[in-house]
Amino acid sequence: MMDPRHAILFEPVAIGPKTLPNRFYQVPHASGFGSAKPLTQAAFRGIKAEGGWGGVCVEYAPVSADADEEPHVAAYLRDDRDATALRLTADAIHEHGSLAGMELYHGGNSSKNVASRHTRIAPSARTAEIHWGSAAREMSVADIARIQSDFVRGARLGRDAGFDIIYVYGAHGYLLTQFLSAWHNVRQDSYGGTLANRARFALETLELVRDAVGADCAIATRICLDGRQGVKGVRVEEMLPFIQMAEPLVDLFDVTVGSWPEDSGTSRYFPEGHQLSWTSQVRQATSKPIVGVGRYTNPDQMAALISSGEFDLIGAARPAIADPFLPRKIAEGRLADIRECTGSNVCILKEEDFRHVGCIQNPTAGEEFRRGWHPERVDPTPDPQRSVLVVGAGPAGMECALTLARRGFDAVHLVDAEDELGGRLRWTRRLPTLGDWGRITDWRRTQLDGLDNVQVITGRRLTADEVLEYGADIVILATGSHWSSEGTQPGTRKVITDAAGSLTPERVMAGERPSGQRVAVYDCDGYYVAPGIAELLAGEGYDVHLVTPESVVSPMSDGTLEGPMLRQHLHDLGIQQHTGVTLRSRTAQSVAGETSFGDTWELAVDDLVLVTHQVPDDGIHRALLADADRLRKSGIGAVHLIGDAVSPRWISEAIFEGHRLAREIDLADPTFPAPVRRDLPV
Amino acid sequence: MMDPRHAILFEPVAIGPKTLPNRFYQVPHASGFGSAKPLTQAAFRGIKAEGGWGGVCVEYAPVSADADEEPHVAAYLRDDRDATALRLTADAIHEHGSLAGMELYHGGNSSKNVASRHTRIAPSARTAEIHWGSAAREMSVADIARIQSDFVRGARLGRDAGFDIIYVYGAHGYLLTQFLSAWHNVRQDSYGGTLANRARFALETLELVRDAVGADCAIATRICLDGRQGVKGVRVEEMLPFIQMAEPLVDLFDVTVGSWPEDSGTSRYFPEGHQLSWTSQVRQATSKPIVGVGRYTNPDQMAALISSGEFDLIGAARPAIADPFLPRKIAEGRLADIRECTGSNVCILKEEDFRHVGCIQNPTAGEEFRRGWHPERVDPTPDPQRSVLVVGAGPAGMECALTLARRGFDAVHLVDAEDELGGRLRWTRRLPTLGDWGRITDWRRTQLDGLDNVQVITGRRLTADEVLEYGADIVILATGSHWSSEGTQPGTRKVITDAAGSLTPERVMAGERPSGQRVAVYDCDGYYVAPGIAELLAGEGYDVHLVTPESVVSPMSDGTLEGPMLRQHLHDLGIQQHTGVTLRSRTAQSVAGETSFGDTWELAVDDLVLVTHQVPDDGIHRALLADADRLRKSGIGAVHLIGDAVSPRWISEAIFEGHRLAREIDLADPTFPAPVRRDLPV
Repeated sequence: MMDPRHAILFEPVAIGPKTLPNRFYQVPHASGFGSAKPLTQAAFRGIKAEGGWGGVCVEYAPVSADADEEPHVAAYLRDDRDATALRLTADAIHEHGSLAGMELYHGGNSSKNVASRHTRIAPSARTAEIHWGSAAREMSVADIARIQSDFVRGARLGRDAGFDIIYVYGAHGYLLTQFLSAWHNVRQDSYGGTLANRARFALETLELVRDAVGADCAIATRICLDGRQGVKGVRVEEMLPFIQMAEPLVDLFDVTVGSWPEDSGTSRYFPEGHQLSWTSQVRQATSKPIVGVGRYTNPDQMAALISSGEFDLIGAARPAIADPFLPRKIAEGRLADIRECTGSNVCILKEEDFRHVGCIQNPTAGEEFRRGWHPERVDPTPDPQRSVLVVGAGPAGMECALTLARRGFDAVHLVDAEDELGGRLRWTRRLPTLGDWGRITDWRRTQLDGLDNVQVITGRRLTADEVLEYGADIVILATGSHWSSEGTQPGTRKVITDAAGSLTPERVMAGERPSGQRVAVYDCDGYYVAPGIAELLAGEGYDVHLVTPESVVSPMSDGTLEGPMLRQHLHDLGIQQHTGVTLRSRTAQSVAGETSFGDTWELAVDDLVLVTHQVPDDGIHRALLADADRLRKSGIGAVHLIGDAVSPRWISEAIFEGHRLAREIDLADPTFPAPVRRDLPV
Repeated sequence: MMDPRHAILFEPVAIGPKTLPNRFYQVPHASGFGSAKPLTQAAFRGIKAEGGWGGVCVEYAPVSADADEEPHVAAYLRDDRDATALRLTADAIHEHGSLAGMELYHGGNSSKNVASRHTRIAPSARTAEIHWGSAAREMSVADIARIQSDFVRGARLGRDAGFDIIYVYGAHGYLLTQFLSAWHNVRQDSYGGTLANRARFALETLELVRDAVGADCAIATRICLDGRQGVKGVRVEEMLPFIQMAEPLVDLFDVTVGSWPEDSGTSRYFPEGHQLSWTSQVRQATSKPIVGVGRYTNPDQMAALISSGEFDLIGAARPAIADPFLPRKIAEGRLADIRECTGSNVCILKEEDFRHVGCIQNPTAGEEFRRGWHPERVDPTPDPQRSVLVVGAGPAGMECALTLARRGFDAVHLVDAEDELGGRLRWTRRLPTLGDWGRITDWRRTQLDGLDNVQVITGRRLTADEVLEYGADIVILATGSHWSSEGTQPGTRKVITDAAGSLTPERVMAGERPSGQRVAVYDCDGYYVAPGIAELLAGEGYDVHLVTPESVVSPMSDGTLEGPMLRQHLHDLGIQQHTGVTLRSRTAQSVAGETSFGDTWELAVDDLVLVTHQVPDDGIHRALLADADRLRKSGIGAVHLIGDAVSPRWISEAIFEGHRLAREIDLADPTFPAPVRRDLPV
């Protein structure tokens, strides 16, 4: 039952000619689906409407030939075919009574245009800051008219495709923002100079779009309130007056702060609601509805934001990926069931780098169409009386046991050697800055606790013999992996002389410490573990050197938008970063190796932590398979290996595999994933 | 008329049940089209058949669910829809009497599988060398059977789609090579150990594919003859015996050397035919037809390779992009018309990074379908009596004048201020390692010389007044750009104190030299100019420091596969690379700035070369537009600005724009590119 304090979140909100059924609003965000995977898009967004998000938007929709973002996927609105593709999504959102939004976009100077070969355009000619095909040229007045008519055409296509909310996208440093920015815009004509002139392009465009579709659709704009260090020339002192100017033309203000890495800041470097010191000022400038984001998952905090008048709608991108049913769970008072976003930005890494969104918390995100997975529903098993033993309560094992129990298996046992659940998350969550990743374990622990047909047994390290004798019909081994202490290079398997037996992440997290003040952390992994260990030791006063063969520390963190911040953070903590270095040997007083150019390199240190590679802990699996006779006689009908014990992987993928096996375990051969449905443009 | 010494190149060659009409063979290479842009693919490959390539192949065709290369585009052969899409290409190739080839692929350990979420597989479990979703697990015998049957299914789909040549892809370190490599493959079963065992997977797969389609199709395999530094565990001593083992199963051996950056080595670091010391050994092992590449464009060299028996077919990827009509031109004895590949790898940069291939030499590459452009044919202008003045004979101006003349304009004048044609290529081609880029100028110069209706006038620097009085009906300004000596940061426009007036690339190439021994080259451009200037000065004995705000020197060169080689090359020349440094000031004895972490940084140098950004030279254009009355009275009907004078860009894009304007100049508004045709998957 809903907590009455949260009722305010379920009030309808009028935006122009439309009414949102409640205050939960999934803001536009990329998915990798765009108009290229229309059925995937429709299923992905439709689930959010089903889960109670009153407004659900698709990603940016480039409207002009010279807003070409290839190879990135967008909700392109070029012609009727695109509109037909996107109509499926609008329909899917409407099916659950929610409003569908779309975001008309031109990147100006930020558009790539290399695949299309268009010259990039901008309010003023500016040298390319990124080395794409051409520097931007100054837009002519004819360009301005052309692009404004493209926005109008896009708005009509969007309306005709069934969208209720039409954005004119102005945030994140794109074309509207470039016009507004005195840094980007140094035009001498009526579109440059004073704020009123710099605002002209945005205001005219809003007016044209409003004239075209304003009777049928709500007109929204997303704007960057203050560029901070990320968007040059955008200051709150000018943006509040701009909002006042735009107010008569706008039905909903969607406000952001800074560039994308700040707007979508990870939990490592940004607390929830970090934007609020800026966005809370918007109310001074407008009485129109305001939406903003802050990675909010706590309904008390949401209700306070509405009550204070700072926001009218609670915007979300990542929390709505992690839990599409967050609003419903609040409505039903099921707060403990909310699968909270960890702020890891694995969603962004996957969408940006691989063009198919996913989630570290929600294994069904992005799988709604192609695998037919629903975040809240699973098919009951046709054969519930089989007993299941899951060995290992890391991410894969917890998710697998939980999903099997949800599918109605009568008896699922989840057994772990440690006293605490979580597998590698036990120590990962204790690394500095990674505390919110603990939500992965905590949510699953809570869910397991709520089910009668699953028994969690901790502090019991099963042997292969004990597994054979356990009495289970199905055995699932999720025994994880450990960091190698062999002292070898993962890429080449060459030995680092005398490095075998050096410290590893797990040993440091179990309490072992370097033998002296100076310590090298050798990172061949390139993600969060080595920086975490380095920060931990630096915080305790060690003189820490992070050494890596990569050309930058933690290249993976660039995919999660964290890279530059992470490196600066380590630097500020006094950690020295040695890049392009491959270790070859260690002595009691030093480590030595070579640079990427083949020059010798040496560093005086007292100790070494190896973050080279993970080794699967698949001993039980090997033992069971080694004696086929005994396995058959044990009565065990099936043995499965999942997660890091198969091969080390990201946490998101370990959880996915645990979930997948549980969903597909009744198939004839669940070892290999079932074929997925294929999506294609209309 | 053909030179009789080249007749050998036009002999038919039997491969299994098929016969190639000649010895020109476009080997499989990526395009960004795959089965995703079927009409673009068909037009792109069909033109090559029309141009005389007797064999024309599409790119790699992943056959299994766990050979997922997203977001890269490939000729996926998953189902009938893919086969239908690719049939268009086979038909387009057959239309000109050539054979169509396709390349069945599984990447094993190299497949990404992040979008699909499949676990990566390999002969043996090996830590991921690249930080994709999961490390590879060891393939089971069931996996081996599954993938072999996927190859067979792919072969049948390929045959049924009309392909004549079916590859089992084994080069570049992919799955077959991983099995063959004693480094990758440490299996204990019959697929590992001895060479005969390690060859088993490849031989079985070849046999299965041969059994399935060998009566209808030629069976080819692409193999890496020696891994060199790039593909671990692959040695010619084992690969020659492997070729002997495979010989009964194979109709065509397509041989490569090393990893992709070596196989597709640029002209900067690899001479033509650099692979030959390895590939010439293949004949020892087989009498079956052999094809190899070497960036060959010279028919004498090609004929010698055939006569010597080293190759049976002349393989080409890049030379066939630069000139699809290379074989025909040889057949017709039009050797001077061959548009020779420069070996710049802009094709790879565009295909890899933006998923749509292009070419620095051939502006029609990749434009065959979407713009309907043919490399050898242009539409005659309906209005030939208009006279055209093109000002500036850089890449854009030369290409534009040439294409206008080909379109039949009665009088085209190409006027340049310098005595030599080429614009910025005049000095670019004289930078160390960039000599082959001179082919861009040389080919156009030769073509211009062959046309009566174009007049090339050098050494004449026109003023705006002279342009007005020139008497042209159409004026095209291709006046280029120059490197800024303002001493400002391109990204922020902040001033580098006292740096204004420092040396620039053009001034160095015009003969100016640093005032002392120690010189800093400050690179905010990130491509070839700064490394070229640095190498030039180092070669003359200067103590050169290359300073850049980027995290590596020349990040663009990673897209052309040159990055690591370029950096090593600079290092070996004694050039010091200072990365992550933003300059703030200069004195007579030093430059100073800050690191990416904000720390102060200083370096003692005597002089500074600024490679910050290029400034358009659009003065004439501005002057003409400034006095509308006078322009009207001059009789000039149209004024166009193209290339760097609009905004600085890659050479490939400047040429494209010159070409495009010439093609589209009769449109009502040729300023903005005409809409392109849209392609979609079937």
